[in-house]
Amino acid sequence: MNRERRDALIAVYRDGLLEDTLPFWIRHAVDREHGGFLFCLDRDGTVVDTDKGMWQHGRFTWLLATLYNTVEERDEWLELARHGVDFLREHGFDRDGRMFFQVTREGKPLRKRRYAFTESFAAIAFAAYARASGSERAADEARGLFREFLRHSTTPGSIPPKVDPSTRPSKSIGFPMIALATAQVLRDDLQDPLADEWIERAIDEIRRDFVKPELEVVLETVGPEGELIDHFDGRTLNPGHALEAAWFLFAEAWHRGGDAELEQLGTSMVDWMWRRGWDEEYGGLFYFRDLHSKPVQEYWHDMKFWWPHNEGVLATLMAYRATGEERYAEWHRTVHDWAHDSFADPEHGEWFGYLHRDGRLSVSSKGNLWKGPFHLPRMQLVAWKTLESMRGEG
Amino acid sequence: MNRERRDALIAVYRDGLLEDTLPFWIRHAVDREHGGFLFCLDRDGTVVDTDKGMWQHGRFTWLLATLYNTVEERDEWLELARHGVDFLREHGFDRDGRMFFQVTREGKPLRKRRYAFTESFAAIAFAAYARASGSERAADEARGLFREFLRHSTTPGSIPPKVDPSTRPSKSIGFPMIALATAQVLRDDLQDPLADEWIERAIDEIRRDFVKPELEVVLETVGPEGELIDHFDGRTLNPGHALEAAWFLFAEAWHRGGDAELEQLGTSMVDWMWRRGWDEEYGGLFYFRDLHSKPVQEYWHDMKFWWPHNEGVLATLMAYRATGEERYAEWHRTVHDWAHDSFADPEHGEWFGYLHRDGRLSVSSKGNLWKGPFHLPRMQLVAWKTLESMRGEG
Repeated sequence: MNRERRDALIAVYRDGLLEDTLPFWIRHAVDREHGGFLFCLDRDGTVVDTDKGMWQHGRFTWLLATLYNTVEERDEWLELARHGVDFLREHGFDRDGRMFFQVTREGKPLRKRRYAFTESFAAIAFAAYARASGSERAADEARGLFREFLRHSTTPGSIPPKVDPSTRPSKSIGFPMIALATAQVLRDDLQDPLADEWIERAIDEIRRDFVKPELEVVLETVGPEGELIDHFDGRTLNPGHALEAAWFLFAEAWHRGGDAELEQLGTSMVDWMWRRGWDEEYGGLFYFRDLHSKPVQEYWHDMKFWWPHNEGVLATLMAYRATGEERYAEWHRTVHDWAHDSFADPEHGEWFGYLHRDGRLSVSSKGNLWKGPFHLPRMQLVAWKTLESMRGEG
Repeated sequence: MNRERRDALIAVYRDGLLEDTLPFWIRHAVDREHGGFLFCLDRDGTVVDTDKGMWQHGRFTWLLATLYNTVEERDEWLELARHGVDFLREHGFDRDGRMFFQVTREGKPLRKRRYAFTESFAAIAFAAYARASGSERAADEARGLFREFLRHSTTPGSIPPKVDPSTRPSKSIGFPMIALATAQVLRDDLQDPLADEWIERAIDEIRRDFVKPELEVVLETVGPEGELIDHFDGRTLNPGHALEAAWFLFAEAWHRGGDAELEQLGTSMVDWMWRRGWDEEYGGLFYFRDLHSKPVQEYWHDMKFWWPHNEGVLATLMAYRATGEERYAEWHRTVHDWAHDSFADPEHGEWFGYLHRDGRLSVSSKGNLWKGPFHLPRMQLVAWKTLESMRGEG
């Protein structure tokens, strides 16, 4: 990757973030009447459902405050982050301290889920907002939510298991991944003393139980000690998720001022999961693959979703930065180009979320309970900053 | 539809059932080592997962006993039905009397679900088996399961709701549909005195709360009194499900020796849901559609699944029988041809289950926890018998 290419990419990511993705959501999603945000939008920003997803509330609030903290102290971003914090405070919590997953436009509870990922996304929202605003109250809330997320996720019996654990105990990479990413924010924004311990524990668990060098794979679901579960669930790979975990490791290595072992782990994960996830026939990253190339049970297994491509862009770019090997720059170009050609909506801005395997559009929506201003703008921000940091490296 | 066409179709359905679908499952699914059936099969019958789905156990057992009762008293079918009954008895039940949804090959419990549809499918299995074998014990079990299904499904609080009912109470057409179909079997096979009352209640509920003539639609999820819920869930239509409900109504009308009002209701449902469900661009029936043609949130909304086509074949055929109108024969030909061209596997038999919108194969499996010997062979049996009954009608 030469200097021109690098500078051109910086412009693509930075301008994409600041002149396309962010304006789309600021223009269409802010609910001045009932507070919070309306994320269920059609391609032109029309609201298709007024229900409010709390994952996305935490994530967008984190994004706005993080832009304020790391890009520029724009009043608009801080005001909108406060707008998100207000809604989370007012309508996000059940009486038992746990958070809701989905509420009505007015903030009445609709769904609460078994898992505590709403709490983790709210934790990073409050942490970034605390740093931006200096609010001690928000810092306390962030620390409390991080601990509630950890408590709920690690206390046996807290999460009613879908599969009888006395017959087939299992665990998913989701928890250590989110624990890692959440702890990184709590450390960076709040210097939370609990963060380092959890970063270490999460990395250890991923390396020990989910990464399988002998199979050249990162598993998504394993037994409690990392045992392979040779059934649909245990064989189902999620390449986008594994690529996301890989770049969390690169970010951690660089935060430490370099950590060759972590970089090596991240690079292996990229190697394996790129090979397993990239669709050689149509391009793009599959959503699910089977460990042994058997049929996958999830219906949408071969659809192309926006977010694995965001994670793939970051993972390949960071593998290139870590190794300097041209083949990662090549993979980065491949996934960057395919994703921008296939997902971007030149007419109304932002990206579509859901394509058929062959890259054709499946649905026109820009947002719903699962898609909002997170994976795409985070990718744009992190890729931009990563490329900038490479400037100094020659 | 002329006589030749009718006779040709009878051969397609009858031979498809007896020489293709049924032999595929009898050859590949019977587990002589651990009992029960292995339904998670690849296209050539290879087992891809040894876990056992209890929905499919009830359904295949029902099919085998029903063939014995209505087609021919083949010892093999009765023996295999008993094989299914044995596994259901031995491994199907939790200590509280409710049934499991998924067990290991050896029969150890893996999943139990909020809903009681395993119970309803076991009820029809035991009912058909009781009629085939004369077993009083099985008849008692069938009646008990039917009542447990009704009790669990209608007792407030039995099924933990996904959406807070104090904010947005809702109900799905699934319960009255399955109550209707289960009660029909309990009436026909066991003369269960409770059946008629529930058939009436289920039809009334479908007509009153889910059928919306003013919108020309059958809704899938509504408020407790049939109110439209103008959010993703309430707007999501399931045309295959509505077409299935329509043919249940035709079957009921004819069981009564004719019921013009029920036939009219079924015909309207076919009219509306064919128009909403048929894909004019690529052919085939969409899985989900939005009431107002807005984006659907479920990822696989425009995939083509085998079972809506089975239900579409029956609904259009029966609408033709009910009305004599050529346009239904035309729709029947359209969906019959598209489905047979797209789903049938001439190499290994049976049908594939999951195609992309454009009809190309998405996954090669013939069975999993959701797909087994039910919708396809039931369609073949019911279509064959419906066409035969039309012989006498000229």
